[in-house]
Amino acid sequence: MTDAPMTAQAASTATAGDILSRQLTAQAGAFLRALPLAVGEVGARPGSAAAVPSSGTADLLRAVRRIGGLLHTFGAVFEPGWAQESRTELRWLLNLLALEPGYVRRSVRLLGAVDSLSGTDPEGTGMLAGHAGAPKARALLDRQLTLARTRAHSTVLQELRSARLHALADRMTLLVGEAPLLETAGGRASAVLLPQAAAAFTALSASAQQLPLQRAATPYGGDGLRRLGPLPPSSPAFGQAVPSARVAPAGADAALAADDAPWSRLRILVKRARYALEVCGRPSSELDELDAVLDRHQEAADAAVTAATAARTPRITPATAYVLGVVHADQRLEVEAARYAFGRRWTDLPPGLDGWLEIPPAEGRGDSPASRTA
Amino acid sequence: MTDAPMTAQAASTATAGDILSRQLTAQAGAFLRALPLAVGEVGARPGSAAAVPSSGTADLLRAVRRIGGLLHTFGAVFEPGWAQESRTELRWLLNLLALEPGYVRRSVRLLGAVDSLSGTDPEGTGMLAGHAGAPKARALLDRQLTLARTRAHSTVLQELRSARLHALADRMTLLVGEAPLLETAGGRASAVLLPQAAAAFTALSASAQQLPLQRAATPYGGDGLRRLGPLPPSSPAFGQAVPSARVAPAGADAALAADDAPWSRLRILVKRARYALEVCGRPSSELDELDAVLDRHQEAADAAVTAATAARTPRITPATAYVLGVVHADQRLEVEAARYAFGRRWTDLPPGLDGWLEIPPAEGRGDSPASRTA
Repeated sequence: MTDAPMTAQAASTATAGDILSRQLTAQAGAFLRALPLAVGEVGARPGSAAAVPSSGTADLLRAVRRIGGLLHTFGAVFEPGWAQESRTELRWLLNLLALEPGYVRRSVRLLGAVDSLSGTDPEGTGMLAGHAGAPKARALLDRQLTLARTRAHSTVLQELRSARLHALADRMTLLVGEAPLLETAGGRASAVLLPQAAAAFTALSASAQQLPLQRAATPYGGDGLRRLGPLPPSSPAFGQAVPSARVAPAGADAALAADDAPWSRLRILVKRARYALEVCGRPSSELDELDAVLDRHQEAADAAVTAATAARTPRITPATAYVLGVVHADQRLEVEAARYAFGRRWTDLPPGLDGWLEIPPAEGRGDSPASRTA
Repeated sequence: MTDAPMTAQAASTATAGDILSRQLTAQAGAFLRALPLAVGEVGARPGSAAAVPSSGTADLLRAVRRIGGLLHTFGAVFEPGWAQESRTELRWLLNLLALEPGYVRRSVRLLGAVDSLSGTDPEGTGMLAGHAGAPKARALLDRQLTLARTRAHSTVLQELRSARLHALADRMTLLVGEAPLLETAGGRASAVLLPQAAAAFTALSASAQQLPLQRAATPYGGDGLRRLGPLPPSSPAFGQAVPSARVAPAGADAALAADDAPWSRLRILVKRARYALEVCGRPSSELDELDAVLDRHQEAADAAVTAATAARTPRITPATAYVLGVVHADQRLEVEAARYAFGRRWTDLPPGLDGWLEIPPAEGRGDSPASRTA
């Protein structure tokens, strides 16, 4: 048990500062325990990382996400300059640590897609069964992703020895027991924390309302393939044809990026709301599921970009390019399927999510299931 | 009003032969009126056919389908040799007439898909927006489909002057008023016709039960792309890789054809059940919709084959091949969407469909809406 969520008993007597300090102490402790393990793990694997980050890295990522989310959502009770700096440094470490496992997962996803689409297994033959371009496309994707992963690995190895990481570790050490709180943190937990958690939900809800959720909840609407949002006006392909095949089709890239961006933003807001509920001692399996759906959205969208980029490799055969086109569409279909899943689940949530923010019932929830989720 | 369906009054007194003769007389009359119009229409357009077959051809197709369906479903009351011959000749004409409009529709579908996927319209940007391969892929598909259509046009023009068509027209002339009925046709309409119509539904229902309808009714299951049925054992790609890029990937073609075949068969059975209900004076909008869904399935599956075939054209650029891969996947997605729509609608139908085969209520239904459906 590394967390100390706000239990009913605690909520009735504790100050906001008590709750947040306890939570930060627990997470900073987890950070400091996981850091040497993670550094050792990264150093121990010269490019043979598993799809799931090993336990030290996973624990570190978990603590980093929660501390960052907490500093954002409950930012009003912390010294602003300190909180902002801490969040910047935590985001840097998050991006750094997520890089290599991200490439590994993308590789598993894309090579799996090629295998599935070209498979001749009686249980699930694919539309590219036995296609001559499939092994070539697979090798190309594997080569490009391995290269990207190796580069990421070197970067991570280097940064894990940097002064920047040592400074962040020192910052976390100082956080244990003495978070720089403002005077407002002395107020009652329910009076100070709940409005801030509610604001996280309002931001999530407002962001979701901007999306065509009702359309997304109608299957096979083409939202991931044919009905992207408008191109940004600055895009080179806006209103004009791309002159040559060798020029990257920036029009499509820009349109896809613009279309996926609000969903990426939504994913961050879901995570923040999730962590806010954990601080309030009310972990929500509904939010966990939405988070997982949007993780899938993000990974499929990223994988689609990789397939499209690979198809622009010079001197590939038409058969290879053809298979990559199918894989690209397949991943965009996964994007659409994730939006469908989100659209369906979102309508099941209570309007405004306010019900989740009441003080929990009187049993102790210190050993909440949230302690073990990612 | 060209049809004379079995009304309640008629059903109670008329013999099966009366009902069928009246229906055949009406449809054969429609055939003979539409034939010269259709011949004139085909002759008048040297390769500029519209997506929707012009009215003479449409009327002719409509009569041909209904006479053929009637001779199949109620075959037990006709002289068997004659009925079999007539069906063979009608099927020949159906395939002949459907050829050219089929290519026109396929062209509209595939060029529309390329335009939609590569479009930069603010209302619906596609995942290939501004892609350099899109105009080339579009031109390639247009060229290949125009060629196929021109060939089909020549064949149709030639066959429409053939002795075979004249013989079929004579056969239809003789059918007006004097269908070669067996003695069993003297029985009461409800006693003779309803069991045969019921058999058409039993065949439809049995065929539908063979399909993974429940899985199809779950969206984004990958049924059209990744979860095709097993490869036929005779397929060259079964258990071995295709040696060279120039060899057509017969594995995928065979797997797709085998996967789509039961749905094509289902489409024919839905049409037969539809026409049987019309003869019984009970046209069904549910069956009309299922028929339309399966028409869409068929057209998307055929269009997917065309895209895959075009991608095997020698000397195309990788960009062209890539776009054709996306289009191929897009059409397979349409196949999956049609199966989803079918799976959803099918569960809404009354089990066994028996309710539809009762004698209709006592108002006259001679001017049934079925008279004007395709």
